[in-house]
Amino acid sequence: MIILVLNCGSSSIKYQLFNMDNNEEVIAKGIVERIGFTDAVISHKPSGKAKHKQVLPIMDHTTGINLIMAALVDKEHGVLKSVEEIIAVGHRVVQGGEKYKESVLINKEVIQDIEACVDLAPLHNPANLKGIISIENLLPGIPQIAVFDTSFHQSMPPHAFMYAVPREYYEKYGVRKYGYHGTSHKYVFKKTSKILGKDTREMKVVSCHLGNGASVTAIEHGRSLDTSMGFTPVDGLIMGTRTGDIDPGVLLFLADKEHLSLKGISNMINKRSGMMGISEISSDMRDLELAYYEGNERANLALTMYAYRVKKFIGAYATIMNGLDCVIFTGGIGENDFNIRRMILQNMEFLGLDFDETENHGVKGEDKIISKPDSRVTAIVVKTNEELVIATDTYKILEKCC
Amino acid sequence: MIILVLNCGSSSIKYQLFNMDNNEEVIAKGIVERIGFTDAVISHKPSGKAKHKQVLPIMDHTTGINLIMAALVDKEHGVLKSVEEIIAVGHRVVQGGEKYKESVLINKEVIQDIEACVDLAPLHNPANLKGIISIENLLPGIPQIAVFDTSFHQSMPPHAFMYAVPREYYEKYGVRKYGYHGTSHKYVFKKTSKILGKDTREMKVVSCHLGNGASVTAIEHGRSLDTSMGFTPVDGLIMGTRTGDIDPGVLLFLADKEHLSLKGISNMINKRSGMMGISEISSDMRDLELAYYEGNERANLALTMYAYRVKKFIGAYATIMNGLDCVIFTGGIGENDFNIRRMILQNMEFLGLDFDETENHGVKGEDKIISKPDSRVTAIVVKTNEELVIATDTYKILEKCC
Repeated sequence: MIILVLNCGSSSIKYQLFNMDNNEEVIAKGIVERIGFTDAVISHKPSGKAKHKQVLPIMDHTTGINLIMAALVDKEHGVLKSVEEIIAVGHRVVQGGEKYKESVLINKEVIQDIEACVDLAPLHNPANLKGIISIENLLPGIPQIAVFDTSFHQSMPPHAFMYAVPREYYEKYGVRKYGYHGTSHKYVFKKTSKILGKDTREMKVVSCHLGNGASVTAIEHGRSLDTSMGFTPVDGLIMGTRTGDIDPGVLLFLADKEHLSLKGISNMINKRSGMMGISEISSDMRDLELAYYEGNERANLALTMYAYRVKKFIGAYATIMNGLDCVIFTGGIGENDFNIRRMILQNMEFLGLDFDETENHGVKGEDKIISKPDSRVTAIVVKTNEELVIATDTYKILEKCC
Repeated sequence: MIILVLNCGSSSIKYQLFNMDNNEEVIAKGIVERIGFTDAVISHKPSGKAKHKQVLPIMDHTTGINLIMAALVDKEHGVLKSVEEIIAVGHRVVQGGEKYKESVLINKEVIQDIEACVDLAPLHNPANLKGIISIENLLPGIPQIAVFDTSFHQSMPPHAFMYAVPREYYEKYGVRKYGYHGTSHKYVFKKTSKILGKDTREMKVVSCHLGNGASVTAIEHGRSLDTSMGFTPVDGLIMGTRTGDIDPGVLLFLADKEHLSLKGISNMINKRSGMMGISEISSDMRDLELAYYEGNERANLALTMYAYRVKKFIGAYATIMNGLDCVIFTGGIGENDFNIRRMILQNMEFLGLDFDETENHGVKGEDKIISKPDSRVTAIVVKTNEELVIATDTYKILEKCC
């Protein structure tokens, strides 16, 4: 049972090939980058062999996927005899709107629905669709499964997902909170329940996915209750170059003063703000921490603001659940940056969280409890694996319906 | 010692006359409305006498203040023999920027500073200035004192007041969180410490000023640590017609779809959103509660969203203080709406707050504890009185410097 997982972006395709029969082993993975350029790159890494890189023109997604297929069956770098060994393809799809509360076998209707959500995720859904159509052209009739970033958050109640804007905009355009990173939050939540030996239905959890994008989710009875990203991924936490929460009045003021168009405002809040905007040094946590250790005040401010914002969400979410059992850290920053975890978790005794600085120190990319043994609330680092969720969802749907 | 307190808006002037020697007694109060119209109104209420109302053209603030003076010395409705009995005038001023951490005696420099802040409070500071200039013309040389809405929040640390936008905008325009309702938050906080017999420096407090505008403030060591209103008063809680917190991406999306100008967006988030936008019924809590009791689902959603947002701020602020001793409710809604207080305070045991539904029920406009006697966190209703703060600040400054 070989399953291909694709994560198609506007100019890139990430892939992983799983052998589900052999303990969900990843037998190859790689990335196609700079699609649309004559100097595009495909990096292919077969398990147990060296990485193989090629620079060549890749003008569209179909060409990119064709090259992936070629790499998978290549005599030297390949891992399959034929692409027909692949029994299904699982796709990451960013926006499933209100309809898709779970992963789904893709048919014409699903494709139409993903198209209908393009307005809600203009940077992502079109790319996801390109991947689906390309596979249909290259491997006609192969089962394809869509796994949505938004599905897990469809359990949010209306008082959490509605905005206080004129109601007509919800009815007319679907303006509401959708949330993202659902696949990751769900995965680390389930993994945590296994690690702690607790029933998923009996845990009140705040999951912090801190990466390039970042979001916090409140999980109760195994369901997402609220999440910090909103209608778009710019809301909530401070990110590398995104503002997160901001007084909407600031946008109007700056648009007026700086003569910014809508595009200019969008560019400012998405690409020039966040950690980069505050520090004027870098959007990368590693650079900022280096600067902070060298005594740079702006780096210090950026890191303090980042941690402060996460702290406020943890407190808000514990309060709406009227309880807290566990805080999870995942994502590139959440898994690897022990300094920012320390800044977030210090002085949380009021919530019943007794942080263990020694256990936390140096923890990078491993599953580990970082609260004291007698802490009422457990803090834990858990490695996320969105591709594995896509592979297993694909596998489960195949078993049921095909 | 007679002190006149003025709160000048763009088309209105509220006033109160205090006799500071007689237990800070209010000897007259009133309001001038519809300034700029031929059918403007002055309503004057001398203490212990009937209200007196006049409809007449009032084209500017100076005319309005002149009429107030006339009313104060009127043979029939007046309370003074001569306006010269007034020894000082205290003004509410909305924006004092970063300079004014306390109330101040107005001189040329202060007037210039208030002018310099017009950009930050374009609806309020110009009106406040008109009041100051009119008094200077009518009662030349009388001491005037400015009491700023923003002063109390000047103790916020940079990680609370900075936004994650390009830093140049802070340096260039002063784009940061200022917060409002400072006079009210400070007053009810001090009053609460007296009621509870606790040292102001030893209390961790969340103060909820819920009125037409609404904001929540975290207070520790007697100082504002963070507050929900930001650069402008549209941020934070859901208000009558204001959005409060909202994904900035929503604004850009709607501006594009609905072809809204900056003015159109501003109008939408300030005047067409909030409780009105969600419910499509009313911006007034009383109307919404009536509809809710009649089973209206949208009114229910609006109220639930309102309470939910306050709840999240209480949790976030308790967490940043790493503790919570007291939650204060004040303002028109906070003092009078026991239903919304119930919706906010129910299920807060995790924070140590044991709400007393019976004690809360029916409490309107009185100072009262509404948590159970053994609740670790005290919840209390406290009547605010911004005019009294302005009068006492004016009195104190006079004593020191004049």
